Amino acid sequence: MPSEEFRKYGYQLVDRITDYFDCIEEFPVLSKIEPGWLKDNLPASAPEKGEDFNDVLADVDRLILPAVTHWNHPNFHGLFATSTSSVGVFGEMLTSAFDMKAMLWRTSPASTELEDVVLDWLRQMMNLPGSFEGTIYDTASVSTMHAIAAARERAGLDIRVRGMSGRNDLPLLRVYCSEQVHSSIDKAVLTLGLGQNSLRKIAVNERFELIAEKLVEAIVEDIESGYLPLCVVATIGTTSTSSVDPVDAVADICEKFSLWLHVDAAYAGAAAIVPEFQHYFGGWERADSIVVNPHKWLFTPFDLSVLYCRDLAIMKQAFSLIPEYLKTSEESTVKNGMDYGIQLGRRFRSLKLWFVIRYFGRQGMITRLREHCRLARLFESWVNASDNFEMMTPVPFALVCFRACVSSPHVSKDSVDETKLNVLNERIMNDINASGAAYLSHTKLNGKFTIRLSVGSIRVEERHLVKVWELLNAALRK
Amino acid sequence: MPSEEFRKYGYQLVDRITDYFDCIEEFPVLSKIEPGWLKDNLPASAPEKGEDFNDVLADVDRLILPAVTHWNHPNFHGLFATSTSSVGVFGEMLTSAFDMKAMLWRTSPASTELEDVVLDWLRQMMNLPGSFEGTIYDTASVSTMHAIAAARERAGLDIRVRGMSGRNDLPLLRVYCSEQVHSSIDKAVLTLGLGQNSLRKIAVNERFELIAEKLVEAIVEDIESGYLPLCVVATIGTTSTSSVDPVDAVADICEKFSLWLHVDAAYAGAAAIVPEFQHYFGGWERADSIVVNPHKWLFTPFDLSVLYCRDLAIMKQAFSLIPEYLKTSEESTVKNGMDYGIQLGRRFRSLKLWFVIRYFGRQGMITRLREHCRLARLFESWVNASDNFEMMTPVPFALVCFRACVSSPHVSKDSVDETKLNVLNERIMNDINASGAAYLSHTKLNGKFTIRLSVGSIRVEERHLVKVWELLNAALRK
Repeated sequence: MPSEEFRKYGYQLVDRITDYFDCIEEFPVLSKIEPGWLKDNLPASAPEKGEDFNDVLADVDRLILPAVTHWNHPNFHGLFATSTSSVGVFGEMLTSAFDMKAMLWRTSPASTELEDVVLDWLRQMMNLPGSFEGTIYDTASVSTMHAIAAARERAGLDIRVRGMSGRNDLPLLRVYCSEQVHSSIDKAVLTLGLGQNSLRKIAVNERFELIAEKLVEAIVEDIESGYLPLCVVATIGTTSTSSVDPVDAVADICEKFSLWLHVDAAYAGAAAIVPEFQHYFGGWERADSIVVNPHKWLFTPFDLSVLYCRDLAIMKQAFSLIPEYLKTSEESTVKNGMDYGIQLGRRFRSLKLWFVIRYFGRQGMITRLREHCRLARLFESWVNASDNFEMMTPVPFALVCFRACVSSPHVSKDSVDETKLNVLNERIMNDINASGAAYLSHTKLNGKFTIRLSVGSIRVEERHLVKVWELLNAALRK
Repeated sequence: MPSEEFRKYGYQLVDRITDYFDCIEEFPVLSKIEPGWLKDNLPASAPEKGEDFNDVLADVDRLILPAVTHWNHPNFHGLFATSTSSVGVFGEMLTSAFDMKAMLWRTSPASTELEDVVLDWLRQMMNLPGSFEGTIYDTASVSTMHAIAAARERAGLDIRVRGMSGRNDLPLLRVYCSEQVHSSIDKAVLTLGLGQNSLRKIAVNERFELIAEKLVEAIVEDIESGYLPLCVVATIGTTSTSSVDPVDAVADICEKFSLWLHVDAAYAGAAAIVPEFQHYFGGWERADSIVVNPHKWLFTPFDLSVLYCRDLAIMKQAFSLIPEYLKTSEESTVKNGMDYGIQLGRRFRSLKLWFVIRYFGRQGMITRLREHCRLARLFESWVNASDNFEMMTPVPFALVCFRACVSSPHVSKDSVDETKLNVLNERIMNDINASGAAYLSHTKLNGKFTIRLSVGSIRVEERHLVKVWELLNAALRK
């Protein structure tokens, strides 16, 4: 593309993105298209000849925008509310323009070294000891898979070379986690060939936190059965309820049984930068690996997941493999990203995180996370003050789990029909989601349909939560 | 960031990228920084307060740019020369602004449906049958890992649930490929817990193509030893030499022994859109899975790797896992991206590929690939006409493998000291790379140091190859 044309369309795109962020609240949060609408409106085959880029941009407005679910909308409260900052977008612009593949130091010194520096900044912000070194992967699922692969490697079973099939010297390997663990842990063990059966899920208490005593029992029982415990995954900020496992107690157990401790803090890890939330992170400095996702709650565009390892050499031992065409003269003196995982090429992801941290500063990031947590607690106070809604779990961070409950002097709490309540709550949630005014998601806690409201958008203000509260009350009345 | 500020800096970034592409040839191809230079020049800790974005941009010029290796430079001929097109950058701008995570259809209908449409366009362009359905992953390493995981699933060994450890009913599983296979295959089998020993590497002929008869022998021998053959990986366009395995013959063997056939066409798959290159792809339509990387040779910014599967349901069977918090009412009628792999969130990657295909059109893409292949053959003709250089392999696509050789009437070919030739060629390559004028990489073929020149940049012209040819001759004289 001639440079004047590139500049012209580039400006147009910047204008579009500026307007998009300005007008974000005018869009329905969840796209209102019917499944198949976009497919039906696109040609069945590629164009033979190149098209004018104006036509492509017109189709972005006409076809793509209506099919977008607006994660940047301040009333996106589903799953975990994540959103990009403006400077994050700037980072991605340069990353894609440079288009480096950081497999080797020499193919991308900037990416390799900036990654180390920025991850060390973040480590300090989160008060982790200097022994932790980070690596950027795409998603927490991939970070966690690498963590468990490193645990498998450290066990010294020669699985890297000999594998696990056709061996009679390998007992059943075991990984432990709570019942509330994220599905990415299940996916990691099935991918790694450990199988879903290798994952033993430990019961949780009434606050949905792993019960340490049950973990010990399970490990002892497994050892007695001839199984081989490998690793425990503790979560700080589970997906359903943002509950916090007792990491310090789990670390004691891991120490006792020489097990790898992986901490899944993909969501809540960001909160470790806030001084008054330190108590949630007690013991995580004893982990072997920790995953934290800046693309979740640190205003960094997707994707950027960080895995911190206490002994990164194990990861290299698990994955490094240098064919002739990737040998370089400097390999003994530099870090080559490809040595630390399955992916060979890696995007220059650290640039956007560097932009974000510098633009907001540590204090600016703390202020925003604090405000999210304040808003979540404010919402909790409305629920608690209401006769028609009830809280389902505590609110350690910025996720509120609640449900509608119909209280009346004629109905005692015990005689509530749970099935009807589930139907009612699902309907309330679906009504609000279908309206486009907000997006809420759900979970089930002991069989009870629970509405999840996540506060995490960089654009969210108190008025957005007032709006959700009004929507909920209106939906209930209906 | 206030919208007027966003617009201002956005324009500035567009200007910078415009200038960057305009002046790309003024930069050294490989960064000239010493290892550690960038680290040493960055603060050891994050800033406490937010900084002016002007200062960040100044640091991009001062610190990041010197540490960039310029993949977009037309004289980047190392590894596989890949580069982004201008419109690819536009795609990434919007993708990062929308910041969608396409785990569920509802969280990103645009991404989910556009992916299906664009991958079907590409499938048609590459003349693959309609039974192939594609999925976008980040890199070929991850695509291939998923392919072999699908093969493992189809084998019906219940590895997803029961895993491979602690079982005495599982023989040693085997995956086959040629000695010239990419290291990502090794990484896939070790990640999946099959182990590097499970990978049996088959000898190649003098053109570095897998010898089909040797493959049959290996499979028969393994079966007789009680092993269980699972999958064969055939490559169209190997990394060292871009050689092409006899896919049709391999497909016959896979059919006979009921093995999964995975075709690694990460690099050369793009050439399947060029009519006169069809003969290289004979038999790939019989594969179970095929990986093609539009980020390699289709002008699409990194990362975007496509895995085509003939029976995508197997992939879903291998990976789908739906926790309560990801259940949606529409899940039976839509495609949810998370069901097809380990990653839950997925970037809206199809947008950039859609931009690229529409901007260039099928014909425009063919024209560019043809030109790259013409330039590679032109360079080959210079080597062949020279007394001082010799070709080491054929040139099926746009990779030239050659070396300097010192011919003189006093030295017969047989008495050439190979060790000295290796040293000479390595020095020539290192001299050119250190100069910053071009980037070449190498491989070793039967112990012979071989220089690889890859022609693939969207900005490469004949004059850039003339320059390399002059550099080589000058380096040799020196």
